[in-house]
Amino acid sequence: MLTEEFGRRVKELRNKLGISQEKFALMIDMDRTYFASVEAGKRNISLCNIKKIADGLNVSLSELFKDI
Amino acid sequence: MLTEEFGRRVKELRNKLGISQEKFALMIDMDRTYFASVEAGKRNISLCNIKKIADGLNVSLSELFKDI
Repeated sequence: MLTEEFGRRVKELRNKLGISQEKFALMIDMDRTYFASVEAGKRNISLCNIKKIADGLNVSLSELFKDI
Repeated sequence: MLTEEFGRRVKELRNKLGISQEKFALMIDMDRTYFASVEAGKRNISLCNIKKIADGLNVSLSELFKDI
């Protein structure tokens, strides 16, 4: 499912950076519980929040969606 | 602004296909008025609706976000 694929991709890139879920959420000023549910593939996240995550991961939107 | 950049990109790709706004919205089963506001950059569109548009445009999500 799309939201699950997206969550896995975010998690993969975050893990590459070696930052915990909690620290990353704090870093991008996103509610920790909300961010956890995004990574779990449970949210139909909006464009502005997708961009917030991409910026935190230091990748372009295009890069974030690679292979999704 | 992000939503405006996104709207312009969608419009550009839709125009390349030579399909009217109305016909495209009908094709992807999206409310015509909603789709018009997306192209106008006025919507913080969700992931599932972004995917719907990408599929209609016959591009990957990564391709849709190229240069955004």
